[in-house]
Amino acid sequence: MADILHRVGVKTPTPEKVYDALTTVEGLAGWWTVDTKGSGDVGGVLEFRFPVGGFDMEVVELRPSERVAWRVVDGPEEWIGTTIDWDLRQDGDYTIVLFKHQGWKEPVEFMHHCSTKWGSFLMSLKSLVENGEGAPAPQDVQISDWH
Amino acid sequence: MADILHRVGVKTPTPEKVYDALTTVEGLAGWWTVDTKGSGDVGGVLEFRFPVGGFDMEVVELRPSERVAWRVVDGPEEWIGTTIDWDLRQDGDYTIVLFKHQGWKEPVEFMHHCSTKWGSFLMSLKSLVENGEGAPAPQDVQISDWH
Repeated sequence: MADILHRVGVKTPTPEKVYDALTTVEGLAGWWTVDTKGSGDVGGVLEFRFPVGGFDMEVVELRPSERVAWRVVDGPEEWIGTTIDWDLRQDGDYTIVLFKHQGWKEPVEFMHHCSTKWGSFLMSLKSLVENGEGAPAPQDVQISDWH
Repeated sequence: MADILHRVGVKTPTPEKVYDALTTVEGLAGWWTVDTKGSGDVGGVLEFRFPVGGFDMEVVELRPSERVAWRVVDGPEEWIGTTIDWDLRQDGDYTIVLFKHQGWKEPVEFMHHCSTKWGSFLMSLKSLVENGEGAPAPQDVQISDWH
């Protein structure tokens, strides 16, 4: 098993805006992909679509302003059954976001790509909350031939 | 043990410019930190310094335009003894860079930070080779309170 880890600090007085950006369709569409649908409630499924492919995430845990956890129920084979956790805490002027995409069976090349891509999308989340403007797909930062 | 993985594609006709940016003091200073000194030859030590702290890397393997491997011989405690591998290959218009920072003893919060930071510096490497301009420290992209 292998995991993707990230940490960013979002300059904002409380974690609430970050939590909203992770739990509402409007928030998620502002930094990950504009084509986001579904339910952000526990037990609901969020549907993220990209110019090529997409992911369905079951929301497995929500603790307001503290924690969001998803389980991948549809998408690329390597993603199915993996989990994505977001832990938030306030530290001075920053909301610290600890991100884990856990349970990859093998550290395949696609995992390398997804790791860099997640980092880039976390910067998009940071920008959305700090400046009101993220870079969600299809206007996301291109990192390679795999986009 | 835990690893940081990344993948970027650098739009350039051959891997040679990417290899140069990983093996010369001038190249490394163009995307990672302007304060880079030492020897990029096998057995040599490269010294990377940042506004706070730094890393010393022993160059353990060089295969022109294909592979660069370093071992961390000094720096933060969590980094010492870890290894950093760069594998390059040409794929159409892109040089694909597969990056691995292997051998972390624990997936500590600092590892989360370094993962995101590496992704950001790989984008700086990409920009240096593609446009002639990277974002090395101290002008690097700030991702959090930890810089």
